[in-house]
Amino acid sequence: MMAFLKNCWYLAAWDHEIQASAILARKILDQPIAFYRDEAGAVVALHDRCPHRFAPLSKGKLEGGAVHCGYHGLGFASTGKCIVNPHGPIGNNLSVPSYPTKEKYRGIWIWMGDPVLAEGTEPPCLPFFEDIVDSAYSNGYLRGEAHYMLFVDNVLDLTHTDYLHPDTLGGGSYTRTRATVTEHDKGMSLHWHCWNEVPQPIQRMNGLTAERVDSWTEIEWSAPSIMTIRNGAVPAGTPVDEGKSFLVAHIMTPETEASTHYFFAATRDFARDDAEVNSKIAANRAKIFSLEDLPMIEAQQARMKGQEFWSLKPALLRSDEGAVRVRRRLDEMIRMEAEAAAR
Amino acid sequence: MMAFLKNCWYLAAWDHEIQASAILARKILDQPIAFYRDEAGAVVALHDRCPHRFAPLSKGKLEGGAVHCGYHGLGFASTGKCIVNPHGPIGNNLSVPSYPTKEKYRGIWIWMGDPVLAEGTEPPCLPFFEDIVDSAYSNGYLRGEAHYMLFVDNVLDLTHTDYLHPDTLGGGSYTRTRATVTEHDKGMSLHWHCWNEVPQPIQRMNGLTAERVDSWTEIEWSAPSIMTIRNGAVPAGTPVDEGKSFLVAHIMTPETEASTHYFFAATRDFARDDAEVNSKIAANRAKIFSLEDLPMIEAQQARMKGQEFWSLKPALLRSDEGAVRVRRRLDEMIRMEAEAAAR
Amino acid sequence: MMAFLKNCWYLAAWDHEIQASAILARKILDQPIAFYRDEAGAVVALHDRCPHRFAPLSKGKLEGGAVHCGYHGLGFASTGKCIVNPHGPIGNNLSVPSYPTKEKYRGIWIWMGDPVLAEGTEPPCLPFFEDIVDSAYSNGYLRGEAHYMLFVDNVLDLTHTDYLHPDTLGGGSYTRTRATVTEHDKGMSLHWHCWNEVPQPIQRMNGLTAERVDSWTEIEWSAPSIMTIRNGAVPAGTPVDEGKSFLVAHIMTPETEASTHYFFAATRDFARDDAEVNSKIAANRAKIFSLEDLPMIEAQQARMKGQEFWSLKPALLRSDEGAVRVRRRLDEMIRMEAEAAAR
Repeated sequence: MMAFLKNCWYLAAWDHEIQASAILARKILDQPIAFYRDEAGAVVALHDRCPHRFAPLSKGKLEGGAVHCGYHGLGFASTGKCIVNPHGPIGNNLSVPSYPTKEKYRGIWIWMGDPVLAEGTEPPCLPFFEDIVDSAYSNGYLRGEAHYMLFVDNVLDLTHTDYLHPDTLGGGSYTRTRATVTEHDKGMSLHWHCWNEVPQPIQRMNGLTAERVDSWTEIEWSAPSIMTIRNGAVPAGTPVDEGKSFLVAHIMTPETEASTHYFFAATRDFARDDAEVNSKIAANRAKIFSLEDLPMIEAQQARMKGQEFWSLKPALLRSDEGAVRVRRRLDEMIRMEAEAAAR
Repeated sequence: MMAFLKNCWYLAAWDHEIQASAILARKILDQPIAFYRDEAGAVVALHDRCPHRFAPLSKGKLEGGAVHCGYHGLGFASTGKCIVNPHGPIGNNLSVPSYPTKEKYRGIWIWMGDPVLAEGTEPPCLPFFEDIVDSAYSNGYLRGEAHYMLFVDNVLDLTHTDYLHPDTLGGGSYTRTRATVTEHDKGMSLHWHCWNEVPQPIQRMNGLTAERVDSWTEIEWSAPSIMTIRNGAVPAGTPVDEGKSFLVAHIMTPETEASTHYFFAATRDFARDDAEVNSKIAANRAKIFSLEDLPMIEAQQARMKGQEFWSLKPALLRSDEGAVRVRRRLDEMIRMEAEAAAR
Repeated sequence: MMAFLKNCWYLAAWDHEIQASAILARKILDQPIAFYRDEAGAVVALHDRCPHRFAPLSKGKLEGGAVHCGYHGLGFASTGKCIVNPHGPIGNNLSVPSYPTKEKYRGIWIWMGDPVLAEGTEPPCLPFFEDIVDSAYSNGYLRGEAHYMLFVDNVLDLTHTDYLHPDTLGGGSYTRTRATVTEHDKGMSLHWHCWNEVPQPIQRMNGLTAERVDSWTEIEWSAPSIMTIRNGAVPAGTPVDEGKSFLVAHIMTPETEASTHYFFAATRDFARDDAEVNSKIAANRAKIFSLEDLPMIEAQQARMKGQEFWSLKPALLRSDEGAVRVRRRLDEMIRMEAEAAAR
């Protein structure tokens, strides 16, 4: 069962991954897609398979905003319609599927479902990333061999940091604090407010020398797999509105049922012009994600041997609340979408 | 559905690939075959799996024209009959399938179907290769991860050269010229006669400095996947019988449903004693095949994800005529052969 | 059909493979197992998959004799019972399967079937390895990509040495001598008594300069795949009780249906304090197993393409008697065990 939510925006690439004169081949929801920029710079997303002999269009070339198949020369406009057939007249049906795209938050977003339903919609709101300066911004990309919801689980249960990242994000405060989970129209909110706690190693490294700290971590999830985190700390008792926050987005896009494009971006509400601090934080984050999270998530996937998550009867813990509610809500959205499509 | 034409000759190897004292293991139509030369130098082809414990005979050794299994010593004659059993009497049924072979055109041909039907037959006629001198001959071999008919399609629709090989064979003359396709008893003929055309880059490199040229490309296909090409050019208006032709064979043999042995050989009707020209042409051709054709064909296969060609509803173009008629004819031959076998 | 004998002891590792402070991950009968030593040094074997989110426990850490999952911190005792849940109360069902183990003959043995049936039982008797000195002992391990019974066949039909190991163990005496096969309560005995034979190459290397020798090779097999071999030679006519014997164990444990843990150990009844001879023999044996036996057995497996052994209708030779009777006996044991489990 290949069940993805279709009628929504997925992050397909960071903007710098799609350059003016090259085609990016990337699989999204198990479909091969060719991404390129038209002459105005707008990103085009076409099904990456020529309807003639199934060569990847991404092995072709760009000319005049159209992509020309590198095998027999058919040319396709950004609508997917064939506009060049050097071998004869162009049949009405000669085309490839074209997918709506949007460029926003330095990312390229794609709509894999019914294009009519995309009209008038926007990629989900990522408020921290509306007004970005380079010196307070970094992003990254990892490809992981695991179901995208294992990556989502990882973010939504931050108690994992106490065990998987003991030297940086750990320390036990997440485990000792019950998250507040709130469902709302646009998604779900998870809040950890860890009052009067021992600082995490990374908080000490960041100069928080107090023996006890008050910290906040606020996750906003929106379907299907888009999360932002606002996180910061102050010496215990200090008004939290004097604190500084790190602002991070974790966005997962299914490549296949068993592999994921993991995009992350970060900014902060302090020292926004300090490019040096910016690089240091970015490097540290990429290291933790790639050396600690990714191998664990891929190991989970391997142990599951392709079996469906619920069929394995996972033991549920208190810390799973957010992740489980998100899974159930998303399952329901996928079910309703399939029902609507069948009507 | 593993559907290959069985009762026909397949090219299995070039003669130099099967040396006097070594065994070549190669899979043909998904069957493992051990090839070796008997004491008289004739090539023997045995099913490469000992009937005792299924060890590959190709890991054994040759002695007195027989192959001896390297695991428990059973020896098999070129007929496939066991002739040495160090462990006791030889049962009547102790044997491996043996396949008819022929050595012709510097190649080793194998018959994978009913051996009775092979009697009195010969590998298909390759007229250009009857009388070969070393200085006007070269051959090559590539293994490709794609269905063999994708390799056949590639040759039968030469318009691809205009897009895939723009710097050598391209230029547009194939695309601008409709091929004449003629079915006949022995197979199918495709003729491109490109009159008064701009020369291809490679024609210029070969010294054809005229602004316009008349060129001819004549393909003869015979089942299942054997093609020869005669190709040459003269300054426009020159009598074509004053022209020189390159003569090339493209011969595909299925390794499995998804991989192919691609053999090619070349000669010419001019400068046949110029070994230097010969090497240069051969190197250039091998480079084009391996760096341009092979990756594109393997990419097609990947995009088809194991689905049957027609089930994907390929868009048909004028330039497909030959390839499509060949596919239909071959499908019909396979169907008839299966029916005959079922009677 | 994944059919293994379950209610028996399998060798899982050599003792030195499981160190005090590390966890060994190894798959046995297609189940992932985490092996480690508790505080008393006893080996614990737990199903290597946390019941919470299916992370491998082997990626966790050891503390106080318990293994703590490296993802969210659940801790499990050697019984498999969860004893630490940092996220709340411990449900009665929160546990992982735990497997009985025994440490014996420098090996770690595991019982994959019903633990109740393991009570009061011991790993099979390996008499030569009861009283071992380092200077007369060596062991080794190979992982092979083949069904474990192909490894068993290899040992039980020693005529293979005449063809696969001609320069060491070969010479033809096994092939010329019919083995005596005797079934008994505890398993099966295969005896080759090769009287008045030409010495094997390795016997000459070992100083047996007589032109003819009397040699003995006595295999004891016990289910499912445990064999010991006693083997030696004297100048022809010398009383055999004056001879020296090499004593070797070959023990196979299925990793999956198509891969095997191959353990071997060796001792001897002479020169037991000569560590130099010991190393030399061990190195030679490991070389033969890894460079000659293993590639042949993996090649058999590849040729069988996942098909069941009997379905391929192997030709039976005299030398197969022991191996075939062992296969039939084991098949019967597996069938009876499955019947008993279904009752």
